[in-house]
Amino acid sequence: MLGRLPHGKDLLRTIEEFCERDSIRTGIFFVIGAVTSVTLGSYDQNQQVYVTAKKEEPLEIVHCTGNISLKDGKVSVHAHGVLADQNGRTIGGHLFSETRVYAGEIFIQELTGDPLEREYDDTTGLFLWNL
Amino acid sequence: MLGRLPHGKDLLRTIEEFCERDSIRTGIFFVIGAVTSVTLGSYDQNQQVYVTAKKEEPLEIVHCTGNISLKDGKVSVHAHGVLADQNGRTIGGHLFSETRVYAGEIFIQELTGDPLEREYDDTTGLFLWNL
Amino acid sequence: MLGRLPHGKDLLRTIEEFCERDSIRTGIFFVIGAVTSVTLGSYDQNQQVYVTAKKEEPLEIVHCTGNISLKDGKVSVHAHGVLADQNGRTIGGHLFSETRVYAGEIFIQELTGDPLEREYDDTTGLFLWNL
Repeated sequence: MLGRLPHGKDLLRTIEEFCERDSIRTGIFFVIGAVTSVTLGSYDQNQQVYVTAKKEEPLEIVHCTGNISLKDGKVSVHAHGVLADQNGRTIGGHLFSETRVYAGEIFIQELTGDPLEREYDDTTGLFLWNL
Repeated sequence: MLGRLPHGKDLLRTIEEFCERDSIRTGIFFVIGAVTSVTLGSYDQNQQVYVTAKKEEPLEIVHCTGNISLKDGKVSVHAHGVLADQNGRTIGGHLFSETRVYAGEIFIQELTGDPLEREYDDTTGLFLWNL
Repeated sequence: MLGRLPHGKDLLRTIEEFCERDSIRTGIFFVIGAVTSVTLGSYDQNQQVYVTAKKEEPLEIVHCTGNISLKDGKVSVHAHGVLADQNGRTIGGHLFSETRVYAGEIFIQELTGDPLEREYDDTTGLFLWNL
């Protein structure tokens, strides 16, 4: 499915809403577009916490990609993104709310089969799939 | 469909030609490869114009992604890309012609259903899907 | 198929093992996650050799994408990646072993039809598809 992300809305929340509307529990997605602000994170592998930073400036979403699965029975969107400023300089990482859409085009591919559930993983401190 | 992008040809024009040849009006695509030059743009959200810059040097196409839809009844390719130089330094943005292929591998997934048509959007000044 | 990349294993070798296990000879894939080290390369178009560099530090796999085809009758994984450090600074290029997974989530889409075979291409010095 191709869809348009509404101007001014939060990127992650919008993807969650698409999933709720269409009852998507497993899938992958890609987004290109632009934002007016972004919150990017990186996982500190030693401290096992996400370090985040918000940037309030117009940026191209050069590419955002991720997957949809379940955590505690609810839809969980895991998204990473690369953004570029007006000089083409790029930043990237794990995408958090809030990340505000200027314009965006999404492709969501729903996957069939048993849904994937995230569970706490002792080794990494992350919630990974129970595979 | 996996395809090979011809050496020395323009990246966007080549994708358009694939679409014309296979009558693809809606779809998504991904490219990896390398270029000998690239034209990257960023949308100035205040002025509502694209600012572009051409770089004439060998670069890896770390990732190029985008979608295919219609504008004024014709195939319109919207592509974003991340490129890297020999030190791994990345630049990115909206891809324009001309961007000249050194070598490239493309995956195109045609999507079924009603074709999407781009229309002028007053809020952003962009041609977005009429959804 | 969505899959989890094992902690501590080599990224490319793991993708090859998925292909061997599921008899995948043609396909595309996407990965997001994190690594503890990465080996990135860039193709020197003049010398026609890959220049590689290894970085030993925790990095987000902002996006890794590529394709699966055959070379000398064996599965050949061609992967590119964008990685980010804790400040969101990105590097990218052609991914080589070794690139060690901290955590990773992969989507592999097997493609049907005749398998693609890589052959030496005189113009670029690369092994490209015989299309």
